[in-house]
Amino acid sequence: MEIKVSLGAIEKASKDLSNWGRWGPDDQIGTLNHVTPEMIAKAATLAPKGKVFGMGIPLGSTGPQNGLFGGRWNPIHTMLATGTDAVAGRFDDPVSIRYADDVIYMPVQAATHWDSLGHVFYQDKMYNGYDARNVDSGGVHKLGMEHARDKMVGRGVLLDVARHRGVDWLADGEGISNDELDAVAAAQGVTIGKGDFVLIRTGQMERCYSEGVWGGYAGGDAPGVKFENCYWSQEKEIAAIASDTWGVEVRPNETKECNQPWHWVVIPAMGLTMGEMFYMKELAADCAADGVYEFFFAGPPLVITGGTGSMINPLAIK
Amino acid sequence: MEIKVSLGAIEKASKDLSNWGRWGPDDQIGTLNHVTPEMIAKAATLAPKGKVFGMGIPLGSTGPQNGLFGGRWNPIHTMLATGTDAVAGRFDDPVSIRYADDVIYMPVQAATHWDSLGHVFYQDKMYNGYDARNVDSGGVHKLGMEHARDKMVGRGVLLDVARHRGVDWLADGEGISNDELDAVAAAQGVTIGKGDFVLIRTGQMERCYSEGVWGGYAGGDAPGVKFENCYWSQEKEIAAIASDTWGVEVRPNETKECNQPWHWVVIPAMGLTMGEMFYMKELAADCAADGVYEFFFAGPPLVITGGTGSMINPLAIK
Amino acid sequence: MEIKVSLGAIEKASKDLSNWGRWGPDDQIGTLNHVTPEMIAKAATLAPKGKVFGMGIPLGSTGPQNGLFGGRWNPIHTMLATGTDAVAGRFDDPVSIRYADDVIYMPVQAATHWDSLGHVFYQDKMYNGYDARNVDSGGVHKLGMEHARDKMVGRGVLLDVARHRGVDWLADGEGISNDELDAVAAAQGVTIGKGDFVLIRTGQMERCYSEGVWGGYAGGDAPGVKFENCYWSQEKEIAAIASDTWGVEVRPNETKECNQPWHWVVIPAMGLTMGEMFYMKELAADCAADGVYEFFFAGPPLVITGGTGSMINPLAIK
Amino acid sequence: MEIKVSLGAIEKASKDLSNWGRWGPDDQIGTLNHVTPEMIAKAATLAPKGKVFGMGIPLGSTGPQNGLFGGRWNPIHTMLATGTDAVAGRFDDPVSIRYADDVIYMPVQAATHWDSLGHVFYQDKMYNGYDARNVDSGGVHKLGMEHARDKMVGRGVLLDVARHRGVDWLADGEGISNDELDAVAAAQGVTIGKGDFVLIRTGQMERCYSEGVWGGYAGGDAPGVKFENCYWSQEKEIAAIASDTWGVEVRPNETKECNQPWHWVVIPAMGLTMGEMFYMKELAADCAADGVYEFFFAGPPLVITGGTGSMINPLAIK
Repeated sequence: MEIKVSLGAIEKASKDLSNWGRWGPDDQIGTLNHVTPEMIAKAATLAPKGKVFGMGIPLGSTGPQNGLFGGRWNPIHTMLATGTDAVAGRFDDPVSIRYADDVIYMPVQAATHWDSLGHVFYQDKMYNGYDARNVDSGGVHKLGMEHARDKMVGRGVLLDVARHRGVDWLADGEGISNDELDAVAAAQGVTIGKGDFVLIRTGQMERCYSEGVWGGYAGGDAPGVKFENCYWSQEKEIAAIASDTWGVEVRPNETKECNQPWHWVVIPAMGLTMGEMFYMKELAADCAADGVYEFFFAGPPLVITGGTGSMINPLAIK
Repeated sequence: MEIKVSLGAIEKASKDLSNWGRWGPDDQIGTLNHVTPEMIAKAATLAPKGKVFGMGIPLGSTGPQNGLFGGRWNPIHTMLATGTDAVAGRFDDPVSIRYADDVIYMPVQAATHWDSLGHVFYQDKMYNGYDARNVDSGGVHKLGMEHARDKMVGRGVLLDVARHRGVDWLADGEGISNDELDAVAAAQGVTIGKGDFVLIRTGQMERCYSEGVWGGYAGGDAPGVKFENCYWSQEKEIAAIASDTWGVEVRPNETKECNQPWHWVVIPAMGLTMGEMFYMKELAADCAADGVYEFFFAGPPLVITGGTGSMINPLAIK
Repeated sequence: MEIKVSLGAIEKASKDLSNWGRWGPDDQIGTLNHVTPEMIAKAATLAPKGKVFGMGIPLGSTGPQNGLFGGRWNPIHTMLATGTDAVAGRFDDPVSIRYADDVIYMPVQAATHWDSLGHVFYQDKMYNGYDARNVDSGGVHKLGMEHARDKMVGRGVLLDVARHRGVDWLADGEGISNDELDAVAAAQGVTIGKGDFVLIRTGQMERCYSEGVWGGYAGGDAPGVKFENCYWSQEKEIAAIASDTWGVEVRPNETKECNQPWHWVVIPAMGLTMGEMFYMKELAADCAADGVYEFFFAGPPLVITGGTGSMINPLAIK
Repeated sequence: MEIKVSLGAIEKASKDLSNWGRWGPDDQIGTLNHVTPEMIAKAATLAPKGKVFGMGIPLGSTGPQNGLFGGRWNPIHTMLATGTDAVAGRFDDPVSIRYADDVIYMPVQAATHWDSLGHVFYQDKMYNGYDARNVDSGGVHKLGMEHARDKMVGRGVLLDVARHRGVDWLADGEGISNDELDAVAAAQGVTIGKGDFVLIRTGQMERCYSEGVWGGYAGGDAPGVKFENCYWSQEKEIAAIASDTWGVEVRPNETKECNQPWHWVVIPAMGLTMGEMFYMKELAADCAADGVYEFFFAGPPLVITGGTGSMINPLAIK
């Protein structure tokens, strides 16, 4: 499909794709409702090799944050007790357990993470019609991360766009159309189904790692899905979408009228769960090697009450 | 078995149960080595109902920390952007995405968490013989949490000690013997196997929730396994052990010579992975209802480089 | 004067005492404008003994915060480098400076502090008519602490209400009238002048220290000035007012219609700078001993850009 | 004097300049002992104009930290309550005070600050012979910042090296000799006396502000005093030394054998209090204009118990 992205297109898509009320007036998990226990049970059969891929990136000072978006920073990890303390005798009078302890301070979206549905507003509203003022300095009082505590499990499918194009990575600014996603799936011999957790690999993160610099990642330009993806994601009835970029959608954005137009629709109108900064290198290599692009997916969020998201280490199990 | 717990008993057990070198001189994951891909593949078949239980407790100011142990505090969650900001027009000039963002600051062991093997020392040594001075203010340079990023998956088994005793919860200070664990397993019709993730339910956390106060949880008295459990865990070759208490082992401790004697052995000598503050209420009810105490377990840690552990939301999938 | 405190009385006082526009439409420091260089020069002559009193309380985990107000917590102080690290050899390869370093995390109003004029709103407005929406998650964009960076200097006067009453401390809930403040000044032989920094001692903090528990301090009941004090402070044209309590005004408040009625007026209407949790014990003893209740005052705030206040260690120099 | 800087020269200076025991075995403030009440009283007479200069730099995300030294970062300032919340009605049910509140998270030495004497070790020792292991993850248990809570007051003298050289700023790497300090003082018509707080202006900070980039500030190259300054500071019996650079001493350092050689001596051997990142532009302009380079100095530290230092906003009052 061809969409001229604009505020008008956002408005139209917000109406076309609204899931408000679809799962009742009190729903707080949106498209995660697509997943049924049967799907989970079936998905669990997709792990015959017993091979596990952790897709979380390391949390520490060398992470991708650079202040480009939202003033986020990299995880700050400090210690409360150390082995050097122990050797120095800190725990010896009286004789106590010798231990180390530590603290982490980070924006919940600073590394590999889920967005909760409380992360983005359209005008003064949140998904399912909740008032945006439900999110104040005290936290996300509606649509917080905690509602998905036991929901991030099901069939995972990798769409390896970079490999399908025959490149190590897409260049920043390259958009991924709905047709291309379908073509990738077809070429991989996999069908996207209702309730799937769809992982889209652009290779951008691997480029950053190979170059040793994050550059505009996170906050700057990136390959990613085109705005039209909102229609695709709705039609396929997927549970969630994730990518190896910081924001899933293509950057620079397809319009000058606003930034992040796809986000404006998929979170507030559809209630689509979104994952960002998933590390997919070894998973993708394994899929290419055995030709199997589906797997058991388990990506539990931390139960951050009132969170706009959660840092995670999502697992693909094949 | 009957052990008079003492510093001497710790020393003996440390020798009896040492896994140093068992998986090579560079090993950093200890008993997680017991888990094989075959076990994982087989464990994935234990989810026929597709029912998911998230065992992480909420991260927020109402958590269990009270300063009793290590000066830990409850998660502090603050906002970087809000819906009230959005409604006030903060994102309108130029027109930008209306979003909320947030930050969390917490000791990694303040709520439901794994201990990494870098958390506890015996004398000046860590598991596998590493020098304790590998843990300084810069972090855990050996045996950090990151080494287990893709390891916390396998067969889970619940040992519901409280239900076996016919009580809602064990009282603080009540110890759980090896014989009792075996009896619980037998009564439940389940066998503890090599590479299992063993979850021990005492009911203590449920008592706290039902009473509405955390009291001495975390840091104070608790029901839990007796010191002798280190022999049981080694013999069974389990991958990991977890409980619904803050420290797995019984409190007050079984000796006055030191605190947390079981920890002194299982982490530094054995390299046993340990989970704490697992919320098990609904899982336990389900197991009691269907009589099935084994399940697929997926408890991915965050990839906290140099972490003494990680907050988690571990999943049991039946 | 006798005022029946109510929302109506607040509204009336807000009109009676408004300083909006008094120092121009762009003013951001309110009553600190009362201080002139001549006053400062003269105040500097009030230090003939060269005796210095630091009135900041220690910043650390044993502070007064208990969650009663605003979810504030006590300062969290963690290390980035330690002497135990140094002795363990952390800085020896290559040979580098052996040092310790540390971090502090705290609400700016958690201990001894100034409020900035951006701290309190009346309806949708701030002092001088600024819109309250100038304070968003990005900070205090008008009336932030930074505007007072070189303003907190002048003549200090202690009004030792507790000593005047002949008690070690006033009981929680005891109000201090304008007449009493005048009587204390008269008895002390001191006159409150334009541009003064007025320090009011109730003894409450000393009671807490002597009892070893903070109890309702901060956030609960306290002795303090009555609502009518807003008229007194305006008439005297003082620069700032401070006390040894957490909120200057008496608690329980004098009305049930709202909390902290005096704050509603003195910050948004008058632009009065306010200091809280000043430790005055030794200063007060010295004043009682030599009969001199005026001194040179220097209480520089940190230059917290966009801050609602700043933690401080204000000095009285006699 | 000519010193070939080396580990040997450090060792020699540490012996030559040791103040261990000079003020008793329990002393924790070092050269601040040089200040007497008489000096303070006299210093207070140096403020005839009543003009105040705040020398603290703004605390916020645009500060000078860049990770070059010690992994320090710029102050992180987040909100707990906002005006946008207030306007959205957060405080209206029940009717409560409408307020904003906020938090700061920062290394205590990330901006304008004092070093405490617990900041630097020589071998395994601190100033006055204390064992370096008194500084562990729990904080600085000897020589912490709290001991100086009422000590940072006295006569301030500005030595405007940049203006004396006729430049806006010294270039990075330019050293300042003892002879030059004496020449500057002589040219300015001021004598450095016992107990003085000596402020050395290189102009580096002003260069950074004028260029709009911090570059290697903090952590990289800088103009500053030569190693030999330790002899000068000891001979003059000054109370403290401060500069407008991040580390007072010249960078690159005068030796390859170690970094920061001057620090190795002045803190552990002498117990010299040191201030860094003092903003001096307006003060220096005023001194140049009226030819008066002495003033009343008040730079109270926060009472950070166990701190390696404290962020400050020190005042010069002329």
